[in-house]
Amino acid sequence: MAGKIAIVGAGLVGRAWSVVFARAGFEVSVFDPVDGASDRALALIAESLPNLAKQDLLGGETAAAVEARLSTAASLADALDGAVHAQESAPERLEVKQALYAELDRIAAPETVLASSTSGIPASAFTEGFEHRSRCLVAHPINPPHIIPLVEIVPAPWTDPAVIERTRALMRQVGQSPIELTREVNGFVVNRLQGALLSEAFRLVEDGVCSAADVDAAIADGLGLRWSFIGPFETIDLNSPRGVRGYCEMLGPLYYQLAQEQADPREWGEALVAQVEAQRRKKLAESAIAARQAWRDQRLAMLVNAKKQADRELGE
Amino acid sequence: MAGKIAIVGAGLVGRAWSVVFARAGFEVSVFDPVDGASDRALALIAESLPNLAKQDLLGGETAAAVEARLSTAASLADALDGAVHAQESAPERLEVKQALYAELDRIAAPETVLASSTSGIPASAFTEGFEHRSRCLVAHPINPPHIIPLVEIVPAPWTDPAVIERTRALMRQVGQSPIELTREVNGFVVNRLQGALLSEAFRLVEDGVCSAADVDAAIADGLGLRWSFIGPFETIDLNSPRGVRGYCEMLGPLYYQLAQEQADPREWGEALVAQVEAQRRKKLAESAIAARQAWRDQRLAMLVNAKKQADRELGE
Repeated sequence: MAGKIAIVGAGLVGRAWSVVFARAGFEVSVFDPVDGASDRALALIAESLPNLAKQDLLGGETAAAVEARLSTAASLADALDGAVHAQESAPERLEVKQALYAELDRIAAPETVLASSTSGIPASAFTEGFEHRSRCLVAHPINPPHIIPLVEIVPAPWTDPAVIERTRALMRQVGQSPIELTREVNGFVVNRLQGALLSEAFRLVEDGVCSAADVDAAIADGLGLRWSFIGPFETIDLNSPRGVRGYCEMLGPLYYQLAQEQADPREWGEALVAQVEAQRRKKLAESAIAARQAWRDQRLAMLVNAKKQADRELGE
Repeated sequence: MAGKIAIVGAGLVGRAWSVVFARAGFEVSVFDPVDGASDRALALIAESLPNLAKQDLLGGETAAAVEARLSTAASLADALDGAVHAQESAPERLEVKQALYAELDRIAAPETVLASSTSGIPASAFTEGFEHRSRCLVAHPINPPHIIPLVEIVPAPWTDPAVIERTRALMRQVGQSPIELTREVNGFVVNRLQGALLSEAFRLVEDGVCSAADVDAAIADGLGLRWSFIGPFETIDLNSPRGVRGYCEMLGPLYYQLAQEQADPREWGEALVAQVEAQRRKKLAESAIAARQAWRDQRLAMLVNAKKQADRELGE
C-alpha cells in the first residue's frame, strides 16, 4: 500500500476522491457522520467500479483491486488513525467546517495533512486558532475529480510550505494536476476564470448580441478546443511567431478596449436567468438533466483518455 | 459540383478556407493580387492535402479529388465570375479592405455574397455607400478553419437577412459551426469571450496569485475539458439538478462579487508581458514556436476527430 488516506464526508465529491486515491494504490478509509452514509457510499463506489474500469478510469487496475483498498471507518478517529492525508468533503457551510476542523485538529496526528475540498471557503476561515493549523489547507477539485485532474491548492496564511509541497506531490502521485495559489483569493483561480467568462457570456445574452446556444458554440466548437489541451497563455503564445510578446503588441490595445467595456459588473437578474433557463430547457428538459450529466461524464472520460493517447503519440 | 466559391487573399486563412470549401464539394477559385501568390498558395495547399487526408481532415475525400476542385484565377473578376460566395481574407488593415470592397462590389454579380474573414473590423467600416452592400458581411473563422469549425457571422446594419441565412446555411453545408451576432460589437463574440478570460488570467499573474503555467493548467486540465464539448452555459446548466436557475441561485452572489473585483481594466504593461513571456520561453524557445504550432494543429485534428467519434458513439 502507498499509505492511508482518510476520506471525510462521503457525498459525490468524497466518493470520487475515494476512487482517485484507491486506484493509485492507497488504502482509503471512508467516514461520514450521517448514520449509514459511509456504508452506502462504499456500496455506491463498488457499484460504479466495473463501469469505471470499462472507461479506462482505474489506471489499469481491476475493479476488485481498487475495491479491496476501500473500507469504512466506524468513527472519525478510526478514519484518521495512521492517515498521511485527510481529504474533507463536508457540506459547504462555514459553521459545519468550523466544528469539523475543531474535531479534526484535535483527533488527527499532527503529521496528518488536513485538506478541504471546499470550492470557496478559505481554510483561514475554519482553522484559525487551532493548535496544528499549519497542516491545514484547501485542495479544491473540479467535479468529478476521478475524471478531471485539476486540483487547486490554496494555503491559509499559516499553512506550512512543506505541507503545501507534500500535498502537491501527493496529488501528482495520484495522477491529478495540482496548481498552487500563493494566497487565498475569492473564488480561488478556477472560479475566478470561470466567472470572468460567464460574466461576459451573460452580458452578451442580456444585451441581445447572440443567443446562449451561440455562446456555447463559440466555446465548444471554437475557443474551448485549444483550451482543452493548452491553456489561454500557451494559446496566445502560439498565435504569434514572436510568442506572447508579439501577440500582446498586436492585440493588447484591442483587449484593453474590451476590458474597459467589460468593467461592467451585473447581477444575473431574474429576467436574464429566466431567458437563459428557457433557452436551455428547450434543448434539455429539467427531467433529463441527470441523464445528461451521466452523458457528460462519459464524454469527459473519453476526452481525458483521448488526451492521454495524444500525449503519448504526439507529445505533451 | 456544389457551386463555385471565390477565395480572395491566399495567405494562411485563405488557404485553409480553400480546403474547407473544396473538401465539401465546391469548386474553389483562388485569387491573390500579389504576383505569383495564387500559384504558390495552390502548390502549398496541394502539398498539405495528403497529410490532411491522413489526419481524416478531408471529410472522406481523397487528396486528388479535393485538389481537382481547386484552381487559380487570373484576375479578381475571374475568381468572382459565377461564384455564389466570396470569402475574403485580405490583410487586416482598414484601407486595404475599403479599396478591395469598392472593387469587389463593382465587379461581383449582385447575388454573390461577399464575406470577410476579418477578426475585428466590422463590415460597416468597409462597405458603407456601396451599391450592393446588403450582400456584405463578416464570416470570421478561428484559425485554422479547416480544423476548427466555429465561424462568427456578423452582419452590418444593412446586411440583408436572407444573406445572413444563406451564409449560415452555406457554413453548415461545408461542416462549419456558424454562430450569428445580431449586430456589430467590438471584438465580436469570440474575442470578447477570450478577452474576458485573458484579462483575468493576466490579472492573476500580475497580482502574484499563481503562475502563468498554473493558469494554463487550470484551463487545460480543468475548465477547458468541459468547454471543449459543451459551452459555459450548458456546463453550469448541468452543475445543478435545477439547471441554470438552480446554479445561479446558488452561485450568482459569488460571481457578482467576483465581477465587481474583476471590473478592473488594466493594460498589459511591459513588466507583466515580460514576466509571462519569460515563463513561456522557459517552456518553449522562440525558435520552437513554429514546430509547436504544427503540434497544436495535429492535436486539434485528433481532438476534432475524437469529438466526432464521441458524437456518434454517445450522442451530441
